[in-house]
Amino acid sequence: MNNVWWLTPAREVDQASREDALARQQQLTKPSGSLGRLEQVAVQLAGLQGRPRPKVDEVWIAIFAGDHGVVAEGVSAYPQAVTGQMLHNFIMGGAAISVLARQLSAQLDVVDLGTVAPLNLPGVRHLNLGPGTANFAQGPAMSEAQLQAALDGGRDSVLRASAAGAQLFIGGEMGIGNTTVATALACALLECPAASLVGPGTGLDAQGVSHKAQVIDRALRLHAQSIGDPLGSLRALGGFEVAALVGAYLACAQEGMAALVDGFICTVAALVAVRINPSCRAWLFFAHRGAEPGHRLVLEALQAEPLLDLGLRLGEGSGAALAVPLLRLACELHNGMATFAEAAVADRPA
Amino acid sequence: MNNVWWLTPAREVDQASREDALARQQQLTKPSGSLGRLEQVAVQLAGLQGRPRPKVDEVWIAIFAGDHGVVAEGVSAYPQAVTGQMLHNFIMGGAAISVLARQLSAQLDVVDLGTVAPLNLPGVRHLNLGPGTANFAQGPAMSEAQLQAALDGGRDSVLRASAAGAQLFIGGEMGIGNTTVATALACALLECPAASLVGPGTGLDAQGVSHKAQVIDRALRLHAQSIGDPLGSLRALGGFEVAALVGAYLACAQEGMAALVDGFICTVAALVAVRINPSCRAWLFFAHRGAEPGHRLVLEALQAEPLLDLGLRLGEGSGAALAVPLLRLACELHNGMATFAEAAVADRPA
Repeated sequence: MNNVWWLTPAREVDQASREDALARQQQLTKPSGSLGRLEQVAVQLAGLQGRPRPKVDEVWIAIFAGDHGVVAEGVSAYPQAVTGQMLHNFIMGGAAISVLARQLSAQLDVVDLGTVAPLNLPGVRHLNLGPGTANFAQGPAMSEAQLQAALDGGRDSVLRASAAGAQLFIGGEMGIGNTTVATALACALLECPAASLVGPGTGLDAQGVSHKAQVIDRALRLHAQSIGDPLGSLRALGGFEVAALVGAYLACAQEGMAALVDGFICTVAALVAVRINPSCRAWLFFAHRGAEPGHRLVLEALQAEPLLDLGLRLGEGSGAALAVPLLRLACELHNGMATFAEAAVADRPA
Repeated sequence: MNNVWWLTPAREVDQASREDALARQQQLTKPSGSLGRLEQVAVQLAGLQGRPRPKVDEVWIAIFAGDHGVVAEGVSAYPQAVTGQMLHNFIMGGAAISVLARQLSAQLDVVDLGTVAPLNLPGVRHLNLGPGTANFAQGPAMSEAQLQAALDGGRDSVLRASAAGAQLFIGGEMGIGNTTVATALACALLECPAASLVGPGTGLDAQGVSHKAQVIDRALRLHAQSIGDPLGSLRALGGFEVAALVGAYLACAQEGMAALVDGFICTVAALVAVRINPSCRAWLFFAHRGAEPGHRLVLEALQAEPLLDLGLRLGEGSGAALAVPLLRLACELHNGMATFAEAAVADRPA
């Protein structure tokens, strides 16, 4: 490829701000460590934002959508037309992520990378990479050019977020069939058979799950040559929206913006990103552990401890959006609580 | 006792509103069940509030504070003066719960049931039940009159919340030594030795935890006659703020207001409440699983599945406050999402 921007190292974490924040946490009027994970979140955000008092007021939610050739193999409970219908629902305000974005006063950036039927929806960015990916059960999901365009599409959203002053990037996804894609990708990267990761997605029955596993295992054999490296796996298995998420997470780390990773599909994209460029790991927060069984293993591979565990399996970035108040409140507590000295409260004897 | 109001049955859940809400969840533009626990929260709130579109905009946070005679046995890492100092911090706005209440636009009701040094703080309700409870290692923590006054104190806060139009009640607690009290109470109700429940509280070391367990086991033997029933256990072991929480949870159920239960101490109070009057159980939501090891067992005894698991161990109602955005967003999603028909999105084939 011509421009391998994704290999540029991530911005360095500001250790001085991180240390300042850590010291402040020890002085706030609470037993040390008693705010648990929220203390770690505030301290990490301080290091990423390069200031001892971090903020996540401005949130950017990008939804990347694409269709998947592998749906021809009968791997989804929903018809493929739903991808485009949901794009319309996102901008009309009726989808879960639309409701959440409104409530969080977050900016919603809806990016269509390529759906089966060409769409022209006001308020959606149509990148027209193709009528969905090719069927990875028969050949590579994407061409080199499509892969680069999808990665660029993810980065472009991050650059818009950065220009808009966003302090937190959330990537969401929509694409009928994309748990199949994400499962295949995770199997390729973690070198395990489909059976150890496959799940019902939006609602397959046991027979459907078994069929999905067979389709994936067959594809892993077909692409055995290509899946030695993460970019090769991504090109072979897809999809457009997964590649956009990979590009987005890498660009976040390079641009110095924290990213909050959503569910199974986004976490697989995060794994691809970290395998491509490990320096991006520090910039990723993980929002939730979803219902899709493979999610747990992919999180473990990333040594990620998500904030929520609510049995979610919707996608769209919805789980990440639900975790935003925790990040905001972690910052407010860190910034707004009194110290023992300020409040004249006795600390425990040293 | 003269007025056993706590035995009055809870308000009945409105099954018609619950069913309406359940039917609506099936029609929203998402795979059925894909919002996980949030769907159950919205449906349950609909039943409690008697309307298919529930809301938790108005939140009331009551903090009940009290001191504990058992601190004389050396069971806490902090000096007892901290209880009063933190009362001051609550109203001055520097405590964790003060910051959270501001961020949630929640009403904060600070109730001092009785601290070692009498206080007179503007903005705090001083109920003056005594200079803390008696040392339960030597005798009953409370008199009959103190127990009744503490239960009444909890109910009075709920009545104020109800008059103020609150849709959700959060009880918090402050009292140096109160994990010892809560652990003893839980042991009495669950009929298990201290070793199976005891933990570090705000920060005891291993030796401190072991000593705390010995103090509790001794007290359980001393009060063996009194701990056959939940009210007897509560009177024997205390504390004032725990009894106020018990009264508050029972009054919430009777008044028809959902309650969101905080961490270990509040969950023990909820267990006492449910043992006194099982009909109150339907009105309780559980916010989080805290770091105190006994919390898990008490939650299991209540068949409670908390929303968060963030390693919190602060008290003050802080964990419950942190879960409020999830309840609010569960309602917003339930009320604000489009149905498949409204959005012209294809549902999965039946």
